[in-house]
Amino acid sequence: MTKTALKGKDLICTQEWSLDELELVLGLARKMKENRFSDRYSGLLRYKTFMMFFYNPSVRTRQSFEAAATELGAHAQFLEPQAMRLKTKSSAGETIEDAARVMSRYASGLGIRILEDKIEAYGEGDELIREYAEYATIPVINMADDKFHPCQALADVMGLREAFGSEDLRGKKLLQIWGHGALARSWCSVQESLLLNSRLGMDITLAYPPGYDLDPEVIQQVQANCAAVGSSFEIVDDSRAGYGGADVVYSRNWMSPNAYEGGFNKQLEIEKALKHRDWICDEARMALTNRALYIHPMPVDRGHEVTDGVASGPRSIIYDIAENRLHVQKAVMALTMGD
Amino acid sequence: MTKTALKGKDLICTQEWSLDELELVLGLARKMKENRFSDRYSGLLRYKTFMMFFYNPSVRTRQSFEAAATELGAHAQFLEPQAMRLKTKSSAGETIEDAARVMSRYASGLGIRILEDKIEAYGEGDELIREYAEYATIPVINMADDKFHPCQALADVMGLREAFGSEDLRGKKLLQIWGHGALARSWCSVQESLLLNSRLGMDITLAYPPGYDLDPEVIQQVQANCAAVGSSFEIVDDSRAGYGGADVVYSRNWMSPNAYEGGFNKQLEIEKALKHRDWICDEARMALTNRALYIHPMPVDRGHEVTDGVASGPRSIIYDIAENRLHVQKAVMALTMGD
Amino acid sequence: MTKTALKGKDLICTQEWSLDELELVLGLARKMKENRFSDRYSGLLRYKTFMMFFYNPSVRTRQSFEAAATELGAHAQFLEPQAMRLKTKSSAGETIEDAARVMSRYASGLGIRILEDKIEAYGEGDELIREYAEYATIPVINMADDKFHPCQALADVMGLREAFGSEDLRGKKLLQIWGHGALARSWCSVQESLLLNSRLGMDITLAYPPGYDLDPEVIQQVQANCAAVGSSFEIVDDSRAGYGGADVVYSRNWMSPNAYEGGFNKQLEIEKALKHRDWICDEARMALTNRALYIHPMPVDRGHEVTDGVASGPRSIIYDIAENRLHVQKAVMALTMGD
Repeated sequence: MTKTALKGKDLICTQEWSLDELELVLGLARKMKENRFSDRYSGLLRYKTFMMFFYNPSVRTRQSFEAAATELGAHAQFLEPQAMRLKTKSSAGETIEDAARVMSRYASGLGIRILEDKIEAYGEGDELIREYAEYATIPVINMADDKFHPCQALADVMGLREAFGSEDLRGKKLLQIWGHGALARSWCSVQESLLLNSRLGMDITLAYPPGYDLDPEVIQQVQANCAAVGSSFEIVDDSRAGYGGADVVYSRNWMSPNAYEGGFNKQLEIEKALKHRDWICDEARMALTNRALYIHPMPVDRGHEVTDGVASGPRSIIYDIAENRLHVQKAVMALTMGD
Repeated sequence: MTKTALKGKDLICTQEWSLDELELVLGLARKMKENRFSDRYSGLLRYKTFMMFFYNPSVRTRQSFEAAATELGAHAQFLEPQAMRLKTKSSAGETIEDAARVMSRYASGLGIRILEDKIEAYGEGDELIREYAEYATIPVINMADDKFHPCQALADVMGLREAFGSEDLRGKKLLQIWGHGALARSWCSVQESLLLNSRLGMDITLAYPPGYDLDPEVIQQVQANCAAVGSSFEIVDDSRAGYGGADVVYSRNWMSPNAYEGGFNKQLEIEKALKHRDWICDEARMALTNRALYIHPMPVDRGHEVTDGVASGPRSIIYDIAENRLHVQKAVMALTMGD
Repeated sequence: MTKTALKGKDLICTQEWSLDELELVLGLARKMKENRFSDRYSGLLRYKTFMMFFYNPSVRTRQSFEAAATELGAHAQFLEPQAMRLKTKSSAGETIEDAARVMSRYASGLGIRILEDKIEAYGEGDELIREYAEYATIPVINMADDKFHPCQALADVMGLREAFGSEDLRGKKLLQIWGHGALARSWCSVQESLLLNSRLGMDITLAYPPGYDLDPEVIQQVQANCAAVGSSFEIVDDSRAGYGGADVVYSRNWMSPNAYEGGFNKQLEIEKALKHRDWICDEARMALTNRALYIHPMPVDRGHEVTDGVASGPRSIIYDIAENRLHVQKAVMALTMGD
């Protein structure tokens, strides 16, 4: 696969890219990390513009994409929709078609983030990104929507490979486990992790309390991914059982499937979640694992999703993964937007 | 005229620049478009700062100026006045003199946008920009005020010349027509179009319903411009009559002269405008023209100012003109701020 | 002292840097001013990111730091905490440790501004910056907190040296005087001026009305600084007495020590300050001086802190000092963040 194979390609979910394409990204990301400010990679997008369109604010995504553009010689515009006079159900304004077509004239790439309180029903955020992608003639990168978060999953994989000292994740056991917490998060990071890590051959245990099912279509795809590579997938509803033999523990809060009934019930979700006080990743549970790595996409809700001891402990690689967001995003941008 | 002739010059209204000066801009803009990322033009403002001061937000103006700076190697600071502690009628703070003098020390150019709800009477926005220009020792660029919008008119002309395949617009008929709509827009784009296109020799029909007169001083200048080059200017109050024989149709909503009576009556203006449902540019009307081009400064209020069929039709050049904002602004910045 | 001596060093208060270190900054700042866009200095931080974290907005600090980054080839991210989902006393979110550790992975330096209404008690802002500095592995630069403002004092000194035509400020008399006004300002600029100028050997008269004492620990340090170099320090409570023989007058409003009793009483502070109408730097008072320079960190509250005649008069160097913010900050960034 040549380096120009990805030119112009949207990245909305890793499942829509071949493993070869994803490995091209991960390979370049590793080289970019090893040679962070070398001239070899720094000027690849010189004078180019990347537009970051944040329906929802996000510190890490904004910081890492903006730094990624800078390190490539490009500039990332920080755009918020309240200043954009877009058409909505209740007000006149510009259509997405017009916005996307014009942005395509100014920029070399467009990132969009939309989830949580900026949508009214699960799936709307992902749909909106796909509507932009339909009209844009430049690559559209999903900077997290209600369904998927491709750059997070790529950063996770990069971090796991570094920590294990091996590119091969097959046969490693990933415990993807719900944590209680006060942030009522969307499903994107968790679903993208399941989708990508299942394709890479990890054995996956998904654990959550009753009432916290994820998207059935995504789960079906994860099962198909596991079947295709011969790895295992199981769902448990116990806060402890999945830890046995785990090589990686990824604890994270997510909202229930009822979160959008009659609007986004954030407060209700938080109250409901906080009752499950037993769903926390702590030292005692980690002791049951195969010296598991601890991962999390951050921000970490310490004391709820995970104890301080685990999050700041020797097996936590949360900061490395956060850093890898920068490198995978640089690679994605260079490969989709560069020449 | 040498390339340094414009160094340090403010651009508040095209009428204040000679045609030679404007052609210098348009000529450079064309070359910059043909060689978008070439080293010849990309680094002209390297390490320089352009300050964009948005009293009113604007997506296209912000995106295009910020991208223009990036492509020239410069950086555009996105500044909003609520964070600037400026002195107002009712609160202590920094004077415009102090703000302008200090910005002149940091930046190589200053763009300002102020119109619509950020002023209390027609003309105040333009006055404010001129107050900044009085004290600033760097070029001040009008990024749209209540009276004028020079970069929009330059982008319009660039687009028309491209579409006609000729630099010579003399004798072409421009229908500048009011459209009903829900956005209560300032007069700047329309007035600047009349001013510049009249100087370039276009025959102009200005059409609007009773009660939507523009600035009488501007109209007088347009008449003088037409007289000077021997072209025609007429005003009609019919939503259909002007289309006959038109080479260019520019439909656009604008507010009435009463909009600022006792504050900015946006809602009232919208209600009043929406009653004129016959004032829309549609396929039937366009069929009366000389295969006219359709132009609009965007954002388009589709279904009010123009039908989807026309705005997205084969004779619409709205995206090309939007793109040209970038190129003319790059040229203006390079010529006024560069060495 | 080599140019790499400052690599990685935080700048929270000038008192914590040696005079040799500060002179390294001031020397480089002067060269950078003389060769503003030369290749010698322009690319020193190419492709690097500086994060500007504004708990409080500020026009001059933001403009000058952002321009400083641009002129060094870097990019300054403009970050506001409301978009950062940080943990507070009342809401879940990210800890400062996590935020600082991740920013250290993306950026080469971190600037923080926090004072006035964003704190609940004097000292909290400075404490917060020190908490970031504890966890960050990149240099942290104080962009003004409730106690200190190092870059302002460095810019002041640079401006005084330029205006006097001499590096040696020993024996010059500085009148640091309170002014009435409607902005209820923090103590940072004033305290930093006292701390730095006392080390440089200026004779200092501090003047303010009863009830406007500054931080006793800072005053004690200033006295120690003066004692160490053999210069004088006095405090007077008269709005006129200190002007006699002054070489530099620095008039500036500041809040009283009671400002944070039961929350930040901005309105009360303003009302209280505005009663002291005699505390203004005017032409009559300036006539008592040794043709004193007038300095102020801006924004100037004209008519309160100082008359227009003085602020815009021939001995005012307020714009030069404002410009020097850019140059000293470029030097600080290059020396602490560069290679």
